[in-house]
Amino acid sequence: MIEHAFDRAIALAAQPDGSFLGHTSPDYGNMVGPYGGVTAAQALNAVLLHPERRGEPVAYTVNYAAPVSEGAFTVHARPARTNRSTQHWVIEMLQQGQTVLTATAFTALRRETWSAAEHTMPAVPPPGNVPLPAREPRVEWVNRYEMRFVHGGLPATWDAREETMSRSQLWVRDRPPRPLDFASLTALSDVFFPRIWRRRASRVPVGTVSMTVYFHADAVHLAATGTGYLLGQAQAQAFSKGYFDQTAQLWSEAGELLVAAHQVVYYKA
Amino acid sequence: MIEHAFDRAIALAAQPDGSFLGHTSPDYGNMVGPYGGVTAAQALNAVLLHPERRGEPVAYTVNYAAPVSEGAFTVHARPARTNRSTQHWVIEMLQQGQTVLTATAFTALRRETWSAAEHTMPAVPPPGNVPLPAREPRVEWVNRYEMRFVHGGLPATWDAREETMSRSQLWVRDRPPRPLDFASLTALSDVFFPRIWRRRASRVPVGTVSMTVYFHADAVHLAATGTGYLLGQAQAQAFSKGYFDQTAQLWSEAGELLVAAHQVVYYKA
Repeated sequence: MIEHAFDRAIALAAQPDGSFLGHTSPDYGNMVGPYGGVTAAQALNAVLLHPERRGEPVAYTVNYAAPVSEGAFTVHARPARTNRSTQHWVIEMLQQGQTVLTATAFTALRRETWSAAEHTMPAVPPPGNVPLPAREPRVEWVNRYEMRFVHGGLPATWDAREETMSRSQLWVRDRPPRPLDFASLTALSDVFFPRIWRRRASRVPVGTVSMTVYFHADAVHLAATGTGYLLGQAQAQAFSKGYFDQTAQLWSEAGELLVAAHQVVYYKA
Repeated sequence: MIEHAFDRAIALAAQPDGSFLGHTSPDYGNMVGPYGGVTAAQALNAVLLHPERRGEPVAYTVNYAAPVSEGAFTVHARPARTNRSTQHWVIEMLQQGQTVLTATAFTALRRETWSAAEHTMPAVPPPGNVPLPAREPRVEWVNRYEMRFVHGGLPATWDAREETMSRSQLWVRDRPPRPLDFASLTALSDVFFPRIWRRRASRVPVGTVSMTVYFHADAVHLAATGTGYLLGQAQAQAFSKGYFDQTAQLWSEAGELLVAAHQVVYYKA
């Protein structure tokens, strides 16, 4: 029996033709369809489970091509190019023969080199000093994460007053805690509520169309983080004619930048 | 006759099977192979020229899977999903039957909405007050751009002294000037020299493995920019075990954020 909801959600069954069969999980339900972070993790998992994979994920881009319906899906992951210590993947998720997601991934064997942080973790109170939100979430997937907002939580009232800045900072981890891996780190990269809701205090319709995750963490960083909290930060750079971008970081509690993530989001306003 | 070197470089010939045939351009030669920004523009051009395209580019991710050799290449661009006003593309560039580049693009019909800047243009002197570099470039493609470094140009000496910050700011445009379009904006998104050279004052071997461009500009912004300068800014967030990331912005001289771009780069150090 798979104990953790996240492991159940990303479970894939290898098919005779080399593809993978998965199912959406009601544990990660969103307003319409599943939480996009888990969909991204499901598609990446086809690479992680692939018998030809070489190395660990370094870059991953996922494009949400159509709403994912509740039920089964197929993931095709193809190593388009395999080099000595790197590999490029092309990924596609289908439902009823129609593409619902496209993605590319880059995996590599990493090695010790000179390394340095540049975007260091902001000074914030430790997770134990930051309360959980009092309100009940409106969507199921939010229950799967422990989110402690340091700054920029959901607006207290949806009064459409306009803020000048969309930044949020929160301590976050799986609920219940689960040792961090590349799949869960991918899902966590999408954990931020839409920046336009924060900026405009208005719950306008939105949908992520593309997300890119750069993994600065390797397996050593993941093991060191374990079930600890991550500090997440997200901010938009511009809202322009129906699409805004978001730039995000996730640091371990020890202050290592594990992920730099970016997305572009459709909005109706 | 095609007058501008950039137009010659990105020219593609439609093939009977729906693919496109192009050639690398010595005008945009880099240390080894062509300048990656032009390779990215060539691959995007297969979408821009595609008879089934709907809308303008909003998100574009390009993965450099292998060195591009001098000579011919084929680009396949497939609309994996076409929705009412959006489209998702999967792109692949091949040489001698081998994949050298994979990419995905998202195009959309944009419409007027509430829009807002958040990452505003830094205060810098106007382009006319910023001199051109005195040194001759070591690679050909640099001659195709007018670059006026406001801050953080190439280190004056490669003395391996370590800086604490990798940010660069420059005024940049095609040389000779050329009206901005999505292809040239894509190429310009890769115009920044490697952040590790700036951070370490050491010309270590590097290579971009993946770049993502979010277009905040639509055709109206492009027309308003014309042949004007762009202000470019780039900075790394972390250098970790052989890979660093770069986050970049390009603003029009009027202060509109045209592009938010990101890349992850291999380094040997």
